[in-house]
Amino acid sequence: MTSVTSLFAPVEDDLAQLVENLKQLIGARHPVLFAAAEHLFKSGGKRVRPAIVLLLARAVADAGVEISPRHRRLAEITEMIHNASLFHDDVVDEAEMRRGVTTVNYEFGNRIAIQAGDFLFAQASWYLANLDNLEVVKLLSEVIKDLAEGEIQQGFSSFDVALTLENYLEKSYYKTASLIANSSKAVGVLSEAPADLTQDFYEFGRAVGLAFQIVDDILDFTSTVDALGKPACADLKSGNLTAPVLFAMEEKPYLQVLIERELTEPGDLEEAIALINHSQGIARSRALAEEYAASAVQRLAKLPASDAKQALIELTDYILKRLY
Amino acid sequence: MTSVTSLFAPVEDDLAQLVENLKQLIGARHPVLFAAAEHLFKSGGKRVRPAIVLLLARAVADAGVEISPRHRRLAEITEMIHNASLFHDDVVDEAEMRRGVTTVNYEFGNRIAIQAGDFLFAQASWYLANLDNLEVVKLLSEVIKDLAEGEIQQGFSSFDVALTLENYLEKSYYKTASLIANSSKAVGVLSEAPADLTQDFYEFGRAVGLAFQIVDDILDFTSTVDALGKPACADLKSGNLTAPVLFAMEEKPYLQVLIERELTEPGDLEEAIALINHSQGIARSRALAEEYAASAVQRLAKLPASDAKQALIELTDYILKRLY
Repeated sequence: MTSVTSLFAPVEDDLAQLVENLKQLIGARHPVLFAAAEHLFKSGGKRVRPAIVLLLARAVADAGVEISPRHRRLAEITEMIHNASLFHDDVVDEAEMRRGVTTVNYEFGNRIAIQAGDFLFAQASWYLANLDNLEVVKLLSEVIKDLAEGEIQQGFSSFDVALTLENYLEKSYYKTASLIANSSKAVGVLSEAPADLTQDFYEFGRAVGLAFQIVDDILDFTSTVDALGKPACADLKSGNLTAPVLFAMEEKPYLQVLIERELTEPGDLEEAIALINHSQGIARSRALAEEYAASAVQRLAKLPASDAKQALIELTDYILKRLY
Repeated sequence: MTSVTSLFAPVEDDLAQLVENLKQLIGARHPVLFAAAEHLFKSGGKRVRPAIVLLLARAVADAGVEISPRHRRLAEITEMIHNASLFHDDVVDEAEMRRGVTTVNYEFGNRIAIQAGDFLFAQASWYLANLDNLEVVKLLSEVIKDLAEGEIQQGFSSFDVALTLENYLEKSYYKTASLIANSSKAVGVLSEAPADLTQDFYEFGRAVGLAFQIVDDILDFTSTVDALGKPACADLKSGNLTAPVLFAMEEKPYLQVLIERELTEPGDLEEAIALINHSQGIARSRALAEEYAASAVQRLAKLPASDAKQALIELTDYILKRLY
């Protein structure tokens, strides 16, 4: 299995520089935030979002042309927005673990987690404004709006058995795909790529983001606590109904009953998990993720062959491989 | 004493419309946020920030010209950013009261307060991007950055007797004056006013903001709980060293001793308050606020006479009158 590090080889140095820049930025004047940033960056996030930005920037440039400072800044902005939103999500969800390590709120308290999130959002907005490109400002401000919307929707749709697959995909777009889609599109805008290619970048990012989220939601059922760094079936327990549950409910009406009473009777959770495992829920979710991954690859067709393009194609494979 | 309502008479209808728009915006799709918004808007905030934007917009327009939709949107953005920052500040400070009513976090929990703040920031960013003016985007993104910086600085300078008046004014700029200064400047930009007038608007807003903050900080010592809606001397208790304390420390070295030990011995707080009351701390703070108010009025000199200009002049008076 390809490791994500070798996958990102064409932009490995760029990513290392990006992490260093963000640490400096956050830590420069605030020791406690520095500790939070260290905590965050040592936790081994995969930097998928900035990697996609950097790989697209490289794939669309002429061979041998360096990634521009504005593309690098855009990559930093995506990672800042992503982490700001994680900080706040973890406070809101009172989460203690993420990616196998304790959360910032658990380690440093809500105060630091909220402030670190606000600081990152604010700094990202400022960097964004100073990219001096109104179209890019609009694309990323849309993302920030979508993230807030997704955070709120998730809270209000807990244990809602009326949730449709369409609702789920919309929520997943807000939560995950919007950032990847719009920042991919922004690469095209900054590179002054033709409009159709720029739109392909958007669709590529959207499809990658949805595949990524569906795979994450499958792993919540199939992974053990150790591999995932958070309790398995956490989504189901908290009433966050994802693709495997929605598909399973179509086959197993009793699953609806259990979910409608919010899994409150003894044995409900175990029974719900068994019903899901005996349904096509996981298999159909996997097929859906594969569809999105394939459609993402198609959107790269207009790009000339390059190491960066190859890495983007392999990234979609890698996302699916997490399932096996 | 002029009431703040009659003061804002030239833009009273505009402000009522603004509050209605914000309620609709926040509440349209999220019932719980709607409750939070209602709670916020019934709490009788004075809408000083959007009032200043609307009054400046009117004062700089030719007589009889209506305020433009973009100026109205800018006014909404200032109120959204202000309230988003209050929501998060109150969570961070675990505040239970503000302006005489319970806070959103106290009433609805941290989850809703954080989400409502994120939602308002996000919506403000999006409105901002769609004003289609890169200079205005930069001015307001600077504000968002300053607010986050102010929030963090305040936490890290608790009970720090080395804090200078300059540090205090910088912190007050971040916390309060930056929003008024930069949104005032943005009025000039949107109105395509001459550069020197636009800079006067910035300086007007900065001076008003600093006067406002200093008066607030004085009131924390001179007001009773009832008038202020939060416990008196709350700043001193929490280690937030403001103008009256900083001036008093110059005269009363023992005050430093008390503050350095964070007022932890029995009777420390009462003794500290007595020392401040027997110093020139309050009087010198008042003189400083008066200086800023006077300098704000000077910055309006280039504007032709109008009801709106008169209201802005009276606003600076009104800020000081809160002290008597």
